[in-house]
Amino acid sequence: MLAETIAVGSEMLTPFRQDTNSLFITERLNEIGVKVAFKTTVGDRMEHLVSAVRTAAQRVDIVVIMGGLGPTQDDLTRQSVAEAMGIHIRRNADIVADLYKRFAARRMSMTENNAQQADVLEGAHVVPNANGTAPAQWLDTVFGGHRKILMLLPGPPLELKPIFDQECMPRLREALPQRFIAMRTLKAAMIGESACDARIAPIYKHYPDVETTILAGGGDIQLNLICEKPALDIAQARVDELAGRIEEELDELIYSTQGESLEEIVLLYLGMKGATLAVAESCTGGLVAERITSIPGSSRAFLGGAVVYSNELKTLFAGADAGLIEQHGAVSAQVAKAMAEGIRKKTGATIGLAITGIAGPGGGTEEKPVGLVYIAVAHGKEIEVVEKNFASFSTQSTRERVRTLSAQAALDMVRRRLM
Amino acid sequence: MLAETIAVGSEMLTPFRQDTNSLFITERLNEIGVKVAFKTTVGDRMEHLVSAVRTAAQRVDIVVIMGGLGPTQDDLTRQSVAEAMGIHIRRNADIVADLYKRFAARRMSMTENNAQQADVLEGAHVVPNANGTAPAQWLDTVFGGHRKILMLLPGPPLELKPIFDQECMPRLREALPQRFIAMRTLKAAMIGESACDARIAPIYKHYPDVETTILAGGGDIQLNLICEKPALDIAQARVDELAGRIEEELDELIYSTQGESLEEIVLLYLGMKGATLAVAESCTGGLVAERITSIPGSSRAFLGGAVVYSNELKTLFAGADAGLIEQHGAVSAQVAKAMAEGIRKKTGATIGLAITGIAGPGGGTEEKPVGLVYIAVAHGKEIEVVEKNFASFSTQSTRERVRTLSAQAALDMVRRRLM
Repeated sequence: MLAETIAVGSEMLTPFRQDTNSLFITERLNEIGVKVAFKTTVGDRMEHLVSAVRTAAQRVDIVVIMGGLGPTQDDLTRQSVAEAMGIHIRRNADIVADLYKRFAARRMSMTENNAQQADVLEGAHVVPNANGTAPAQWLDTVFGGHRKILMLLPGPPLELKPIFDQECMPRLREALPQRFIAMRTLKAAMIGESACDARIAPIYKHYPDVETTILAGGGDIQLNLICEKPALDIAQARVDELAGRIEEELDELIYSTQGESLEEIVLLYLGMKGATLAVAESCTGGLVAERITSIPGSSRAFLGGAVVYSNELKTLFAGADAGLIEQHGAVSAQVAKAMAEGIRKKTGATIGLAITGIAGPGGGTEEKPVGLVYIAVAHGKEIEVVEKNFASFSTQSTRERVRTLSAQAALDMVRRRLM
Repeated sequence: MLAETIAVGSEMLTPFRQDTNSLFITERLNEIGVKVAFKTTVGDRMEHLVSAVRTAAQRVDIVVIMGGLGPTQDDLTRQSVAEAMGIHIRRNADIVADLYKRFAARRMSMTENNAQQADVLEGAHVVPNANGTAPAQWLDTVFGGHRKILMLLPGPPLELKPIFDQECMPRLREALPQRFIAMRTLKAAMIGESACDARIAPIYKHYPDVETTILAGGGDIQLNLICEKPALDIAQARVDELAGRIEEELDELIYSTQGESLEEIVLLYLGMKGATLAVAESCTGGLVAERITSIPGSSRAFLGGAVVYSNELKTLFAGADAGLIEQHGAVSAQVAKAMAEGIRKKTGATIGLAITGIAGPGGGTEEKPVGLVYIAVAHGKEIEVVEKNFASFSTQSTRERVRTLSAQAALDMVRRRLM
C-alpha cells in the first residue's frame, strides 16, 4: 500500500520555507504499514494543483493533501481535487451554519469568502476541525478502476495533527487490511555511520525479515528496526531479538533504546542518581546548556553554568587559574580540567563539565588547529579529560560541525560517567 | 520559465530526513527569474523514479534531479532519466579512466560497481565533480516537442552546491533569455505578521511591479522584494524605492536591510561602538549565547555569560541578591535588573543582558503564569527592563515558543540600545 503527500502553498516553493507536515504523516502511515513513495510540494495555482493530485491518484493508493483549505482566493485544494478526480462539489448548509455560529461567538461578522470552506466533494466525509475554521475531508473513491483514499487536511500543524490522529488514523486502520508491524529505535553517540554499519551488518543480515535503517548526523546514529508478521507478538519478538544483539555488539555506545534524545538520557541518569550538573562552555558557547534546558523539568538536575568565551571569564566563573591559561593556553587539557573542577566547586554540582576548543573558521595554529577540542568531566575527586579533533574538510561548515560534535561528545561523556 | 526539483533517495521518505537541497536550488533559480513550480521527493525505485522524471519533463521546462548518481545498486538516476526521456546511455571511457586514477591516488582498488558512474546520457554534457566521484550531467534536449533542460546532480550538498554555482548557473544564464531581476531582503524583529502587513500593505500595493513576500516565525519577519524590468538599474531602483518607504514606515523595527541575522547585527553594532556584551540567562538556558557564538569572530565582542538556572547561580554568577530573589521571586523585574547589572559588573562588559521567565510547560502560577518573561539590559548607569508574555495556546509548543521569543526579544533589546 503506497501513499503520496502533497503539500500545498506557494510559500513552500520559496528558498525560505519547506513542508514539514509530511514527516509527521510519514511516521503515522509507517506505523500501519503504509509506505510513502512520493512527496510533492505545489503552489497555489489551479492547473499545477490539478496536475499534482491527478498524478498522485494515478500512481499511489493513498493521497494526503495538506493545505489550501482556507477562505482566501488562494485556497484551491477543494476545486483542484474535484477537477482532478472528476467529482462534483456541493456547498454544505450545515457547515455554513456552523461557520456563522463560530464567527458570531467571536462577535465577528463572516465575510462571504469564508463560505467556500463549506464546499464538500461529492461522496466525501466531512471531518470537523476543532482548532480552525476549515473542516477536513475524507474521500474513499474509485479512480482509474482502483480504490483510492484521499485526505484533504488543513495546513497548520496544530490543526492537521489532531485531525490526522483522531479521525484519519482510525479510518485508515478500518479501511486497510489489518497488519502487524513492530518497530524499535536504538540510538548511539559518537560513532561514524560506516564504522557502525561494519559492526552491525554481520548481525542484521541474519534478520532479512527486519528492515534495518541507519541514519547518521551530528555525532548521532539512529537505528530503526521494522518488522511485519502475521501477528504482532511474533513481529515484536523478532525486532526485540535483533535489537538485543545490536545492543550487545555496540554495548555502551548505545545510549537510548526507546527513542529518547541524548540530553533526555543524561537528565534521566542524573535524576536516578540524585546528581546535579553544571557546565562551563567555551567553544560550544551555550549549546550544551541550551540542549539540556530545552527539556521540560531540566531545572531539577541542571543547575546552570557559564559561557566562558574570554579568558577572564574562564578564571572568574570556571576557576581556571590565569597562570595556568598563560602557561598551557586556553585550549588545553589542563585548562579543561581546571574549568570542570572549578565549575563543579563553584556551583556545588555533583558533576562539572567543561569544553574548550577552536571552533574556527579562524583562530587555528599549526600546534592547535581548528577543530581541536578538550572536554573534561569532574565527578567527586575524579577528573577525566579527552582530546578530540573535529576538523572538517570544508571550511564553510567547520564552525557548526566543531560546535555540534563537541556538544554531543560532552553530553555523551557525562552519560558514560553516570552509567 | 518553470522548474521542478526531484530529490532522489529512500531515506528522504522516512519520518527522519527530508530534502534541503531544493531550498538552495530555488534561491539560485529565482535569481535568474526561474520559478520552482513543483518539488518532488522519490525513493530509490526505478518505476517511481521514471514516473517522477517523466511527470516533471511533461509539466516544466527545467528539471533538477538531486541524488542517485553514486556507485551502488540503489543509484538509479541515470537509468531512470534515460528510460523516462527515451534516451540511450553510453559508458564514457575517459570517466572510467579518471575513476581508476582517483582510486589509485588513494591506493585503493576500484570495484566494478563504480564504473556505472561513467554512464552518460546520449547528448548530455558531463560536468566534473571536484568533491566526489560521481560526475554531474547537463542535458539540453527536446521532449514532447518542447525544449527541456535536465540537470543530474550528486546528492551531498558539499558536492551539489559548487557544481550548481560554477557549472549550471553559467549554462542556465546562457540558455535562458536574459532577464533583469533585482531583490532586497528586509528583516524586522518582534512584530506579528498581520500587524506588519497592516502597516506596509498600503505602501507595497502602490508597487504592483514589485513582488513582496512576508515570512514570519520566532519573532522574526523577513520581507522579500523582487522586481523584474528590461534593465537591471530600473529594477534595482524600484526595489530600493519600496525598501526605503517600508524602512521609513517600520523605522526601528527593521534591524537588517541586507539579509543579516539579528545576532550578526548585534555583533556588528557592538564592534562599531567598541562595546562588549555579557549575558545572564535563566529561561533561555544558553540560547542567546548559543546564537551569538554561532557567528564566526563573535569572541571579539562577546565575553560570555552565565546560564543561571538555579537561584544560587543567579546570586553567585549574576550577582542577584538572595534576599531580593526571596522577596520578589526569581521571575521578577527586580531580579532581571539585578542580574543584568550583576553580570555587567562581574564581567566588566559594556552591556549586561539578563533574561528570567517561566518557559513551561509546568511551573506557572496564577500570579506568574507560563510565558511571563522579564528581560533587562544594563548599559553604563542605565538599566532598562521589560515584561513580556509569550504564552501560547498550545501546551505542546509552549516551552520552545517562550524560549525562542525571549531570546529574540532580548537580542532585539540590545540592538535597540546600541542604535
